[in-house]
Formats: sequence, structure tokens, C-alpha cells
Amino acid sequence: MQPGMNNSLVAVDWGTSALRTALLGPAGEVLEERTSPRGILTVEAGAFPQVLQETCGDWLQDPAALCLVSGMAGSRNGWREAPYCPCPAGFTELAQALTWIEPGRIALVPGLTCENDGVPDVMRGEEVQVFGAMSLLGMQDGLFVLPGTHSKRVEVHEGRIRSFATFMSGECYALLKEHSILARTLPAEDGRMDEEAFKRGVRQAHQTGSLLRSAFSVRSLALFNRLSNEGMGSYLSGLVIGEELRLRDPAVHDVVLIGSETLTQRYALALQVLGVASRSLGSEAAWQGLWRLSQTLERA
Amino acid sequence: MQPGMNNSLVAVDWGTSALRTALLGPAGEVLEERTSPRGILTVEAGAFPQVLQETCGDWLQDPAALCLVSGMAGSRNGWREAPYCPCPAGFTELAQALTWIEPGRIALVPGLTCENDGVPDVMRGEEVQVFGAMSLLGMQDGLFVLPGTHSKRVEVHEGRIRSFATFMSGECYALLKEHSILARTLPAEDGRMDEEAFKRGVRQAHQTGSLLRSAFSVRSLALFNRLSNEGMGSYLSGLVIGEELRLRDPAVHDVVLIGSETLTQRYALALQVLGVASRSLGSEAAWQGLWRLSQTLERA
Repeated sequence: MQPGMNNSLVAVDWGTSALRTALLGPAGEVLEERTSPRGILTVEAGAFPQVLQETCGDWLQDPAALCLVSGMAGSRNGWREAPYCPCPAGFTELAQALTWIEPGRIALVPGLTCENDGVPDVMRGEEVQVFGAMSLLGMQDGLFVLPGTHSKRVEVHEGRIRSFATFMSGECYALLKEHSILARTLPAEDGRMDEEAFKRGVRQAHQTGSLLRSAFSVRSLALFNRLSNEGMGSYLSGLVIGEELRLRDPAVHDVVLIGSETLTQRYALALQVLGVASRSLGSEAAWQGLWRLSQTLERA
Repeated sequence: MQPGMNNSLVAVDWGTSALRTALLGPAGEVLEERTSPRGILTVEAGAFPQVLQETCGDWLQDPAALCLVSGMAGSRNGWREAPYCPCPAGFTELAQALTWIEPGRIALVPGLTCENDGVPDVMRGEEVQVFGAMSLLGMQDGLFVLPGTHSKRVEVHEGRIRSFATFMSGECYALLKEHSILARTLPAEDGRMDEEAFKRGVRQAHQTGSLLRSAFSVRSLALFNRLSNEGMGSYLSGLVIGEELRLRDPAVHDVVLIGSETLTQRYALALQVLGVASRSLGSEAAWQGLWRLSQTLERA
């Protein structure tokens, strides 16, 4: 029996801080989703099978179910190391490079690696989301941005990921906000978004050309009462996201965003300021990517 | 009697974390230097006169001695707020904008403010060092870089500071090194400098064009064993300093560095990689600046 054929798929996106799972039907439809805080950092070596059982053991009782696991579970500190697949890579390359935990039954999807300006870059999990988004949107070429602690910018050409780059945007925002001199100026997080302040930050980042320099403007604007207390967090967020989006091919006029609604909304707004259109997708991208991968296996 | 004429000058550079003082003779010669950890953050409101007495009360016993104080002592949280002097500013503008604590006897030197790309910038203390360096080197025009937690880049034209910019380089380096994901990869600080790794960082920063992106290369290079453990701190330092120096007028071929020997050596090396010559000065710049300012007062 070919794995997964006309059977259910247990799709697992196992990241650093969260474990997200979904049960997909034979046509790729999402039957159920479950999220747990058991990211790989909370799982001891050897305990991965047990945690997976605890989260979706009932789904795995179906002897014909295939289980595909993407994300950091395939890293050195995860379930087992699944060697990176080099770019350019599409469904075929990814399907050929699976690391099988139980042959025909449970597999780890490898991450990708590429080389930019003489340095390597890596990702694990985002490649599946990009492939899923391509499938959902019927795209073979385009630019994909996956915002987060370590944002990924992914370039797709003729159905394959050609190259990508990591930006430490989410992490740098948190560092500046919580640990730098700006922390003294910034009010406690209230989660609200001040759109005008955010857009001002995006424009400033574009004009200044380096976050090392633009970041100090949070302090100097505050010193002269030219930035409201309420707007400071949003302004800083705009500076950081604006800095990430500053370096881009001017020929790109359309970007696909994949991530949480809070983040993709901010990136969409920043892109709008820069005159770039965008579409956004959420968790459905990962499920679609894993399902399409299972279909590729069938055809293999 | 004109203040300071043919008399000694008590020169004080009162920063956030340190209090540096010097006794200068009538020709500007440094007779004695004293440094204390009593930066303004350690001084309670109202205790500034007492701390100054404790540090150099003997020098101030000379009834004809003039005392000029530059740095953060003139900030809102310092001895008394000395309003910023707008750019362009030279010795004359600075001398006219002193805030006298005791008329003719003790004065706070104001900091400078300027406007770049629609945002204000500020500095306190660095302006005196730049004026001192101009005097020591006989320069009326040039670019000055003062490395530190918040680096300053200062443009001088016809003997006056035309504009300047702040880069949060020292602070961002410390944040990335101690609080980011890179902290897991970086070995504990041993203070040693790996010149080749540092220069590689400078070149990488230049090529990549954003620290948000280049910073992740510390991790990815380490992952593939393409950067030695010992070189990681120096490589990251090169990325940050290289990012600060990336944005500059290509017509500038000579920079004056003012600061501690450790930092000016790193910046000089980074500038060398970028094909820019440099000269370096240390604490003598502040003393010379304050002395020249006292001479300007005499002539006023």
C-alpha cells in the first residue's frame, strides 16, 4: 500500500515553542486542529514519540494514517536530525529527502539551506508553509514573507524555492523594547496598535537606512515631545518591520504573507506604505503544504 | 577679572557612568587627571556640588580657577538642565550658551541638537571632544566618529559642527551578544580580538546591508562549522561596527576617531577594510576642547 493514499494525514508543525497538529481528510480538508505548548524546547531527548501520542494518539490509531512532521523537530535538538535539503527545492526534492522515523508511517520533513553573499542560511518548517501557500494560491513564482522572531523572506521561481533570507526582526524588536535604553522611555505593553505612529516608523526606517541609527529616534523624538507615549511601541515596531522590508527587489509589487493575523496585518500595512500589495495566509498554509507533500509521496 | 585668564582650568567630563576630571595649567597643559565611578546615574539630585568637591575640591580652592563641566551633568537628570544648542555650532555658540552654576566660576556646557530626515538628534559631551580634536589636529572640516554605547558621527564644516547622528552600536552589540539567540552560540567573553573574524564581519555587513539580516549569519555559519568558536564575538563586533560605517559619504577618505584605545583600534581596522584612513585621539580631546572653550570666554 502506498503511504497516505486515500487515507487521513496527521499533519504536524513542531516548532521551538509550540506543537501544532491537524487531522486532514483524503481531500486535504482540515477535520480537526490541536495546538499545545509542547515546543521542542520543552521535550526531553527520547520523549518525542510520547508527546506526539499524548497530543494526537487517537488520530494515529488509524493504521493507514500517514504522519508528516515539519519544523524544528527535525533539528539537532529535536526528535532526530533531518539533514537540510539544498535550494533550489520543490515538493519533489523535499519528498525525496524525508527522514523516516517509521517507514511509510511517520516522517520528518527536512528544512532547507541556501547560500547568500557567501554565508549559509537555514529554515525548518517555513518551506512547507510556502509550498502550501503556492498550492492554495496557484502560484509558481513570487515573494513570500513569514514574519516572526526570525522572519523569513522566500523567493520562489518556477515552483521551487530558489533562495531565502532570515531577518532577526521579532527578536531585535523585543530586545530593543525590553532591554535597551528605549525600555526606559517606552510605556508598558498594552498591545494596542497606533497606526499613524507605526506608519511613521516604516517611513523613517526607509529614509534612515539602518536600524542602528533609526532606533535612537524613539528616544530623541520623545525627548522633544514629538512622539506620544502611546505611539512609541508602534513607532518602534514600524522602524523594525520597515528595516526588514527596506532591502527588496524594486521589481516586486506583490508579496504573500504567511503567519499570525496580528503580524501579517502589521506587515501588510508596512508594505502598503511602501506601495507594495500583499495577500495573507495563516495556519492553513502549513496543512496544505504537508498534504500536498503526502500526495507527492503517493505519486512517487 | 575675566574668568580663567592666566589661571588654571578645572575640566570636567561628567558622563552617565563615569566622572572624569583634569586640572589644566594656563597654557592648556594637563597637570593632573582623576577619574571616578560617580557618573550622574549614581548622584542624587542636589548632591552634584558635593561630589565635585569630593573629587577635585583641592583644585577648586584656587579662587581664580574656572570650572567647565561637559557631558550628561547638563541633562534633565543631571546637575541642572543646560538647554541644547542648535547646530551649526562652534566655540562661539557654545560659549554663549553656557549655563552658569556660579557666575564666572562654574558652568555647564550645553549639548547640541540637530535635525536629520525629520527627526531630532542630541549629544552631550561629544561636541567638546570634537572641538578639542579639531584644535589638536588643526582641522576646520572633517568627519569625526566617537564610538561607544551610543556612537556619534559628527560632520564639521568651517570650524563648526554642521550635523551629527547617533548609532546604538555598542548597545545593540551587547544586546545581541548577551540576550539574543546568538548568546547560546557565542562563547563567554574572553576579551581577545580575532582580527580575521572581525574583518570578515565588517565585509559581511557591507555586503548584506542590514544588521537584522547579517546578525543571523553568526548562527548559520556556526551551524555548518564555518566560523570558529573563538572568532564569533569578533565576527559579531565586525558586523555591528561594519553596519555603523556602511552608511557614509563615499567622498570621505579620512576619519578622526575619538574614544578609548580598545574601541578606536577596532573602528580603525574596520575603516581600513573599507579603504578609509583614520587618526585616533583619546581623553586629551575633551581637555583640549574645554580649555579652548575657556579661551573663547576670555576673548568674549
